[in-house]
This record gives sequence, structure tokens and C-alpha cells, in this order.
Amino acid sequence: MKTTAKKINVAVAGATGYTGEELVRVLVRHPRARISYVSGKEDREVKIQEIFPYLRGKLDLECRPLSVDQAVEKSDLIFLSLPHTVSMQYVPQFLDAGKKVIDVSADYRLRDERIYEKFYKVPHKDAHNLKQAVYGLPETNREKIKSAHLVANPGCYPTGAILGLLPGVKQGLFEPASIRIDAKSGVTGAGRKADKALGFSEVNESFKAYKLFDHPHVPEIDQELSKAAKKEVSVVFVPHLLPLNRGILSTIYVNLKKKISTEGLIRVYQKFYAEEPFVKVYDTGLLPEIRNVAYTNFCDIGLRVDERKALAVIVTAIDNLDKGAAGQAVQNMNIMCGFEETDGF
Amino acid sequence: MKTTAKKINVAVAGATGYTGEELVRVLVRHPRARISYVSGKEDREVKIQEIFPYLRGKLDLECRPLSVDQAVEKSDLIFLSLPHTVSMQYVPQFLDAGKKVIDVSADYRLRDERIYEKFYKVPHKDAHNLKQAVYGLPETNREKIKSAHLVANPGCYPTGAILGLLPGVKQGLFEPASIRIDAKSGVTGAGRKADKALGFSEVNESFKAYKLFDHPHVPEIDQELSKAAKKEVSVVFVPHLLPLNRGILSTIYVNLKKKISTEGLIRVYQKFYAEEPFVKVYDTGLLPEIRNVAYTNFCDIGLRVDERKALAVIVTAIDNLDKGAAGQAVQNMNIMCGFEETDGF
Amino acid sequence: MKTTAKKINVAVAGATGYTGEELVRVLVRHPRARISYVSGKEDREVKIQEIFPYLRGKLDLECRPLSVDQAVEKSDLIFLSLPHTVSMQYVPQFLDAGKKVIDVSADYRLRDERIYEKFYKVPHKDAHNLKQAVYGLPETNREKIKSAHLVANPGCYPTGAILGLLPGVKQGLFEPASIRIDAKSGVTGAGRKADKALGFSEVNESFKAYKLFDHPHVPEIDQELSKAAKKEVSVVFVPHLLPLNRGILSTIYVNLKKKISTEGLIRVYQKFYAEEPFVKVYDTGLLPEIRNVAYTNFCDIGLRVDERKALAVIVTAIDNLDKGAAGQAVQNMNIMCGFEETDGF
Amino acid sequence: MKTTAKKINVAVAGATGYTGEELVRVLVRHPRARISYVSGKEDREVKIQEIFPYLRGKLDLECRPLSVDQAVEKSDLIFLSLPHTVSMQYVPQFLDAGKKVIDVSADYRLRDERIYEKFYKVPHKDAHNLKQAVYGLPETNREKIKSAHLVANPGCYPTGAILGLLPGVKQGLFEPASIRIDAKSGVTGAGRKADKALGFSEVNESFKAYKLFDHPHVPEIDQELSKAAKKEVSVVFVPHLLPLNRGILSTIYVNLKKKISTEGLIRVYQKFYAEEPFVKVYDTGLLPEIRNVAYTNFCDIGLRVDERKALAVIVTAIDNLDKGAAGQAVQNMNIMCGFEETDGF
Repeated sequence: MKTTAKKINVAVAGATGYTGEELVRVLVRHPRARISYVSGKEDREVKIQEIFPYLRGKLDLECRPLSVDQAVEKSDLIFLSLPHTVSMQYVPQFLDAGKKVIDVSADYRLRDERIYEKFYKVPHKDAHNLKQAVYGLPETNREKIKSAHLVANPGCYPTGAILGLLPGVKQGLFEPASIRIDAKSGVTGAGRKADKALGFSEVNESFKAYKLFDHPHVPEIDQELSKAAKKEVSVVFVPHLLPLNRGILSTIYVNLKKKISTEGLIRVYQKFYAEEPFVKVYDTGLLPEIRNVAYTNFCDIGLRVDERKALAVIVTAIDNLDKGAAGQAVQNMNIMCGFEETDGF
Repeated sequence: MKTTAKKINVAVAGATGYTGEELVRVLVRHPRARISYVSGKEDREVKIQEIFPYLRGKLDLECRPLSVDQAVEKSDLIFLSLPHTVSMQYVPQFLDAGKKVIDVSADYRLRDERIYEKFYKVPHKDAHNLKQAVYGLPETNREKIKSAHLVANPGCYPTGAILGLLPGVKQGLFEPASIRIDAKSGVTGAGRKADKALGFSEVNESFKAYKLFDHPHVPEIDQELSKAAKKEVSVVFVPHLLPLNRGILSTIYVNLKKKISTEGLIRVYQKFYAEEPFVKVYDTGLLPEIRNVAYTNFCDIGLRVDERKALAVIVTAIDNLDKGAAGQAVQNMNIMCGFEETDGF
Repeated sequence: MKTTAKKINVAVAGATGYTGEELVRVLVRHPRARISYVSGKEDREVKIQEIFPYLRGKLDLECRPLSVDQAVEKSDLIFLSLPHTVSMQYVPQFLDAGKKVIDVSADYRLRDERIYEKFYKVPHKDAHNLKQAVYGLPETNREKIKSAHLVANPGCYPTGAILGLLPGVKQGLFEPASIRIDAKSGVTGAGRKADKALGFSEVNESFKAYKLFDHPHVPEIDQELSKAAKKEVSVVFVPHLLPLNRGILSTIYVNLKKKISTEGLIRVYQKFYAEEPFVKVYDTGLLPEIRNVAYTNFCDIGLRVDERKALAVIVTAIDNLDKGAAGQAVQNMNIMCGFEETDGF
Repeated sequence: MKTTAKKINVAVAGATGYTGEELVRVLVRHPRARISYVSGKEDREVKIQEIFPYLRGKLDLECRPLSVDQAVEKSDLIFLSLPHTVSMQYVPQFLDAGKKVIDVSADYRLRDERIYEKFYKVPHKDAHNLKQAVYGLPETNREKIKSAHLVANPGCYPTGAILGLLPGVKQGLFEPASIRIDAKSGVTGAGRKADKALGFSEVNESFKAYKLFDHPHVPEIDQELSKAAKKEVSVVFVPHLLPLNRGILSTIYVNLKKKISTEGLIRVYQKFYAEEPFVKVYDTGLLPEIRNVAYTNFCDIGLRVDERKALAVIVTAIDNLDKGAAGQAVQNMNIMCGFEETDGF
């Protein structure tokens, strides 16, 4: 016997990148969504199930360069998994056609166009829709996401960083100037592309920090934490490249404004996230590992306080392609469409 | 809306090994089965969702050493993911209690007790049930599996090897004496255990062959291919250890008894597997890769003929934990219980 | 033509662990040392070149359990690559026999026996020799190493951390209380042993923090930095386990006491290490990567200052088996014996 | 004290690829050679020790696009580590200038220009020098290499395959038509380049066969084995891509023409290679692993006979960058220049 609830039709633009592929992988077993259109940068006529053979028997769709008309015709909601600066060329067209849009790129995450231009090196071309875009982090914005037409799906690093800091920042427990986020990401975070620096033997058996202070995810983290703190927060953020496919682990250092024990801070976090289906705060003595969240939409959080030094270390783990991208996008779809938030996971 | 079909209760004995964990991971989202009991070698009282944190919200069960009474009381069907030679101590008890059993160990795969003793170094202790056990490869034994009480789930290497040879062997296309199977497996195939030789830095950045000619999966392959060929087949089999978690790729060399082209042999294979939900034969020019089958129950097959030399090379890929173990076990459950064969995948 | 300088005879006790193996690998091509004795935990009579086949043609020695008498008889200098708490049972015997000793364990690194007992859970058994042991970090202690009889070879994490902080700490540029060391190590750092948690499939495709605040290398870092700062320094240190064989990358966050630019701080570091053969400070814009130091005795350092926030991030990379263990031990031997410090590298 | 033997000056053209880098890494500690010139595809003026920071203190050379004049002026012997079809544009110029040349590309390996054109898709442009090129496998051609002006350094797969078959093929022990070579190579074998298919996350956690029957190394293997057998040999060869950096393991299946035991065949092999400094044949029961040969110039060989089936499986392991490329090239230089054959290793 099969479930009989009505399904919506969804399009995935950019289905052949890592995030697009993961969108398809998650959506193909979603009880309330049917993938009705996919596009990808392919120079030949090819079916999506030929590109990703594990889709055989589950999906049967041509995968061609993006056609706005066809996507509009065939679907109710569009996932845009396009490169930064490309997405904003298409979003207005889909919104004008009355479709709901979840944009997985960075184009609608930053409220301030000047900051966008500073970090992405091009002027923003869609200020109108930028204003009404909703930042798609359900743990902070669930109510707004419910009625949103355009959701800006958060970046992978910001998701792991913000969720690790939110309870303490909201309640004023941390010195804002003391926040250091040491983040480590698997290689799919860099996208599927021909790039010598991402070649197997360049990354394998190695590890490095990159873009010290300058990563375009920094203003996104600052924006959301400042909103939560109701004052300006400016974090120190250092990303690293891990020799593995999927996962981000963020080790976050904060100075404490108030005396609190490990158990006390864990209680604050557990209470804060008590109703969240995808955030889990570990008990004392336990810490997250990437293998526990890979291929899931979970964000796992563990922490420890050094009371003598009045500081805490908070560790969060996510799958960069799931809670850090495609999984969170599907969670947002679930919220926008009134489905169970855990549908498809 | 949720599906409302009645679910059966299933037990997973040995849930903390890699195969047991995968059984739980697959079953936890199965529409027709509810995990009602798990056991594992834990020296503390612990919940399964604490051992595997990604199960949170989906499963809430104590994981203790195996209690036959409790497993019998709580479940309709038992998956036994226990070490070889241990399984046969429990199978009779579950069968006597009227339960269906899917044994993932090697204890009921070999029809001939003497061969079992030769390769597993202990006498078989349950000759009675061995006689009625059904070898659980759906592609050859589907009808018998439907009514089986005890299914001997195939080994990982045999699954990849047999599926790659079956169509040609059945139709007498191959010289039986010419078969060479060069198989490469990920490390989860060796089980989750403390073993210096399986330590990360021993395996990582290395590769080796092992157990030349002597692997206990050889008699299993010979038994099933001989049955298919209706004459004795004795393969040459060399396993290797790949520095990755999941997957087996088997490269199989055969001499051809009849003149046939690549396209011709592919047609034979595609026809043979046309109705199989989990076997896919690639078109000319394409070959399987482990990444295309990892985390799926598929067996992908590609091949090429050298007509001048009258030989073929057949390449098969499976996930050793899915089609090679847990996935196939769930497929067997689906068949035994009259569910859709693809349920849960 | 071969070099004709006289060679000393050296023993390697514990030659079958990762560090012991690396000692042998480096020493076997050393122009001034001849390996004259090796021991290892082997339950059979075996030659070292059978355990490590790449030594064939270069070394021909039995590898048996440690015999103090034989090691004393055959060698002038002893490398002890034994587990913590075991080393101090042997060191007195070798010193009493008039041999020079380089102890690669942690037994003689901490000046304060109470701290040793707190972190290693056993009382120190050799207080007498502990007093005269020299901490073997050539960049701080070269003169003392020259005349030392017992060198305590530094820990792997401390080497990467101390070298990254030393110039700034010595010159009072950093707020001592602000130091956060986020260190990531390859798996050989945990030693060669049967341990389920270090199994390939547990570590591969994963990443985790461990021993928050409590790692026994913390007091070692504090001790050496306090000595350099001439006041108490107590760092925040979080180690992580990288899915690769060799290498440690440490990302170090410090608040600056004085206004200084990236270029200015790099100049301080480059001047400080100008004469060091194994420390390299990168120019502005460049950062170290593990692959650039693997299989070498180098410590590479890169850094960047955020002037507005008055902080710096310093990144160091070493090979945990070379500059973090065996390589540094050979460097110490070179210093103790009056050889070229770079001999053997 | 330093060695005082006179050193020759050598050039490495193409020093920034994986093989070129390994040439530099090996040569920089060679007692009889001094690297006097390097070239590489760099669009900026850069020193080789900035590209490969571990060379600091050991080498100080500009790395620019190849200038024949400068290479000729500065060096006595040239290593050409250029792409196939590019090498033959330069070789005549260096030979005409009176320099010895070791060509690491495939351009001078195949005696028959028509076969070259068939597999490399361009006509050969230097038939004159092709005739006098010596195939640089010391184990078969040492005498000719001694006086060669142009050495064609063997391919990586051919080295592992030929060394595994040579003793049996030469002595007529194997059925030539029965040879199947199942070879598995690390990723550096594909060269350092921007290629989506070689991206980390495409290769990591995966494994595949490629170029069934068609690999351009097939005619090279056939040519050399035919010469050894004194009759035509045409092997079946299937290469695979291993998710690791360095190493090739070849599993070779042969039918035996004569009755011989495992011990007997091992004796044949051990006798054949008794004087070879870089080939090691294992005793009964032992098999090579990639980790035992990585970063060495060794070829390790293990084998086992199935007497009942009259066949043998031979396993060989090499480092594709050393014995499979740069190491063998240096071994060839040692032979050409009258140095100790093991110098530099």
C-alpha cells in the first residue's frame, strides 16, 4: 500500500552539482514532492538517471540546460542550485510566474547589497526581491519561512556556526568580541568542477586553512548573529579543507560573560533546541563527529565549559550537503508547503 | 498523511556491527517493518540511538546482549547479524519458536557440511535446519525465498561475483575453467572490531590482495555457479582490500565458448535481468563505479568482449553492506513477507 | 665514492611502532649513524627488514623484545620509543651504563612530577634523572641539548603549538590568556595498536574533536610557553583527529597587545627563526599545508593579522612523525653528537 | 664531512607535474647529481622551492617555461617529464647538443611507429631517434642502458606487469594467451591537472575500471614480453583507479605449461632477480602491499600456484612515481653514468 497524499511538483535547477544531486537524492523519496523538472550543464541530451545511475527506477527525466519556461510549466516550486551571481538572474522570472523559490546560492542571503558586492565582487541585480527574501534557517525563522515566496537557503559554514552560537548569543551569555570559529569542511563544499587545487592527490593526505578572515560566509554569520544578539557581532572565522567528501565540523571558542557550568550551558542549549527536529545537543562528556551526521539533516552539538577560565568550547557537526545545503532546502520546502518538517528524511 | 499498512515487528541481533547498523538504518525507514528489538555486544546499558546518534527521533530501544526470549516475544522476524559459527547456536531456537529468520552470517549458505567445516574450521551444529535453509539471492531463488522460514543471506563477494556471471554461466557461454574473479572490497567488509591490521594508517594509502584461493567465499561462489551451470564450476578468486568504507568492485575474466559481440553479450545480460529491480546492466561503453552504488541496494554490471581473443571482462559493483549484506537481507524480508520488493529503498 | 666519516652506533628501542619505524627510516640513510640494535614487541624471531620490507638491502637486524644488555653492548646512543610510563623504567639503566638517551615518550618532558602524575595517572619513578633531562626542542634549547645525556623529545602537538607561538610570546606581543590552539592530527599520532576507535572505517570520512582541555600535551605547552614568557601561560587547546596518516596542522588564535601589521608580525617571526634549519615562516598571503611538510622535518608557519580586531591567526604545519617525533629526535642526536644539524634529512 | 665525488649537472624539464616533482625530490639528495635547471608550466616567475616548499635549503632555482638553450648550457643530462607527443619535439634538440636524455614520456617506448600512432593518435615525429632509443627497464636492458644516449623510461603499468611476468615468460613457464593483468593505480598516475573526473570527491570512496583492453600501455607490455618470450605475447590488461596517491598493485593470472609448485616458482623468480637491487621476491605465504613500496624504488613480488588447476597468481607492487617513473629514471641515470645503481635511494 502506498501513501496517497497529494504531491507537489518541484524543479531542481542545477541538478548535476553536488548540492543539486543531493536535492534530487533526498526529494526522490519524499512522500509529498515529485521531481518534475531538472536542469544541468550538460552538452549532450542525457537523462538524469544516466548521470546518477542510482536513480534508475525512481526517476526518469531529461536533464538539459535550464529553461525557465519549462520549469515554470512543470512545477509548483523551484530549487535553484546555481552558482552565486547566476541565481539572481533567474529568481525574478520564477517569482513573477507565481512560483515559490528556494535559492541555494548566496544571492539572497545578505540584506545589505553593499556587503554582497564587497564579498561577491559584482553588484546585486535584484534589490527588489532581496528585500522580501527570507533567510531560511528554520531554527530562527520558521514563522517567516511558512509564508515566504523566496527563501535564501543558508550557507553551509553559517549553518554550523550559527546553530552552535545561537542559544548563548540570544541570551547574552557570550562576549561577542571573543568568538572564534574554527571550521573544517569536506571537499564537496567547494562544488563539482575542474580545478587543479581540488584534484584528488592535492587534497588527499593533506589539510589546510584558507581565506583567513575573508570568506564570504563571514558577513552572513555576522548578520544573523547580530540579529540574534540585538547588537553588532563580528566573528573571527577560519575555514579549513578536510580530506573527506561530506561534513563540516566547527569548533567554536567563546568567553563567558556569566559564571555557568558545562551542565548549565548544556541545559540552556537543550532547552533552546528542545522542539527542533534536526538539532541535537549532546549530554555532558559527548562530542559530535562527522560520521554521525553524514547523510542526515541533523546538526549535532556538544560543548564543554572551563569555569576557571570562564570560557566554553562548542563543537557542531553537520553534513554540508544536507543541513548545510540540500537537506535544509527540503526542510524549508516542508515548512513553506505545510508538510511534516521531517518528511523525506 | 502517513501510510497505514500494517507493519511487522522485526528484531536485529548484532545491531552494532557494520552490517547490523546498516540493517537498522534501512529498516528504520521501511514502510512495512518496525524494529522492535535490537541486541549488541555492549558492556553497558545503552540505547541504540545513543550508539548511532542519527537514529534519534526515529528509534528508541535498549541495546543489550542477545536474549532469545525477548527477541521471540517482541518480533515476528529475526535478522541475525552474528559472527560465523555463533549464528547456528541461535537459529534453531528462533525457528522452534515459529519465527522467520534471515541469517546474515555464513552458517547456512553451504549445503555441504564438510565444506563448511573445511573453511570455517568448526563442525556444523545444525544440520537439520541447514537442509531447509534457502540461499537468499533473489535473482536465482525468489520463489523459494517466498515460502522460506530460514534464509541464508549470501556473502558480499559471492553476490557481486555470481550476479556478474549468472547469465553467461546459465546459458553456457563461458568456459567454466577460465573464470578469474579479481574482487576489491571496502573495509567495512571485515567487520567492526579491534584489529591492528585494520587500523586506519595500516589500510589508508595502501592496497593488497589477501587469502589467495582460500577465501571462505570461494565454495559459496562455486556452489551457486555449479547449480546454475548444471555442472561443476570452480572459480579462481582473489580478494583485495580497498582503502574506502563501502563497496565491492569485481573484475571478472572469462573465455567465451561462442562467438558473441559486446553488444550481443550485453543484450543477453539485459534480457536476463530485465525484471530485476536491483540489477542494472549498462549499455556499451559504460562501466560501473563504486560511488554509483554506495548506499544503494543496486548491483551495476558493465562488460566488454574482445572478439579476437574470444574473451569477456565483466565488471560488477555493489555496496558490500547493502546488496552484499543488509540491503539484500531486507530485500529477502520483502519477498518472504509479500511486501513490494523495493520497499525501504 | 662513499663518505668516510666515522659513524656512531645507535639503538632504537620500540622500532615497530609508527615513531620507531620512522626513526629507523630516517636513521638508515644517516651519514653519521649506524643502526646497531632494534627491539620491538614481536612474539616471533623476526628481522626488522621482514617487518618493513623497504629496509631490505639497507638493514639486517633481528628485532626482539628489548634487552638492555644487548642495547648497551651494541650502541653508543639509545632512542627510546616506548609507551609513556614504560620509558622511565629503562632510562636509568641506559644512563648508568654511560649511554646517551633520547626518550621519545612523555616521561621526562614535565619538570613537575605532580603534574606528570595528574596527567599520566602514575607516580613518576625516576625523579633523579627527570631533574637533568633536557627538553629537546632545538629552537629553544640548542645549547643545553649539546651537552645533554638525556633528552626528552617534545610531544607532537607541543612542537607545532610552541613553534607557532614562541616569537610572539617571547617578545610579549600576545595576550597570554587569549591563546586558543585548534590542532588537527593525522592518525599515526595515536600509535600502532589494535583499537576499535582507530579502525579504518571509524576514522575514514569522519572528523572529531577529543579530550577538550584535558589532553596530556597541555601542561607541556604551558610549561614551555611560561618559560618563554617568563610568566604563567595557560593555553586553551583542542585536538582533533584527521582522516590521514601523517601531519599536524595547528590554527592558533591570539589577541595582540601591541599594534602590528601582518607584515610586521611576519618580520618578527622570520627574524626569530632566521637561523633555524627546520622552521620556515611564509611570506604574506601564504599558508602552510600538511602535504608540504609530510615526510620532512620542517615546521612551516604562516600568519595573518586583523589589525582592526587586534588579533592574529597563526597556522603551523609539521609531520607528527618527523618534526613531531622521530625527525626531531634525530635532529637532537645531530646536536648532541656534533653532527651537521640537517644530516639525514 | 661531505662526500667529495664529482657531481654531474642534470636538468628536469616538466618539474611541476607529479613525476617531475618526484624526480626533483629524489635527485636533490643524490650524491652524484646536482639539479642545475628546472622548467615547468608556470605563468609567473617563481622559484622551484616556492612551488614545493619542502625543497627550501636544498635547492634554489628559477622555474620557467622550458628553454632548450638554457637547459643545454647548464646541464649534462636531461630528464624530460613532458606530456606524450610533446617530448619528441624536444628530444632531437638535446641529443643534437650532445646531451644524454632520459625521456619519461611514452614517445620513445614503442618500436613500431604505427602502433604509436594508433594509441597516441598522432604520427611519430622523430623516427630517427626512435630507432636508437633504449627501453629503460634495467632488469632486462642494463647493458644497453649503460651506453645509451636516449633512454625511454618505461610506463608505470608496464613496469609492474613486466617485472611480474618476466621470469616465467622468459623460461616458457606460462601459456602466453592466458595472461590476465588486473592492475590498480593511485591517482598521481593520471598526472597533475584540472580534470573534473579526477576531483577529490569523484575519486574518494570510489573505485572503477577504465580503458578496458585499450590502454596505451598494452602495446608496451606486449612488445617487451614478446621480446622476452621470443614469440608474440598479447596480454589482457584492465587498469583501475585506486583512491590513494601513490602505488600500483598488479594481480596477474597465468596458466602454467609445466607442473610446478608455489615454492618452485618462487625459486625461479628469486633466482632470476637475485642480483637485482630493486626487485624483491617474497617467500611463500607473503604478498606485497602498496604501503611497503610507497616512496621507494622497489618492486615487490609475491605469488601462489594452484597446482590442481595448473595456474599461478602473481602480485607485484611498485610506487608508480618511483619504480614506475621518476625512481626508475634515476636508476637509469645511475646506470648511464656509471654510478652505484642504488645511489640516491
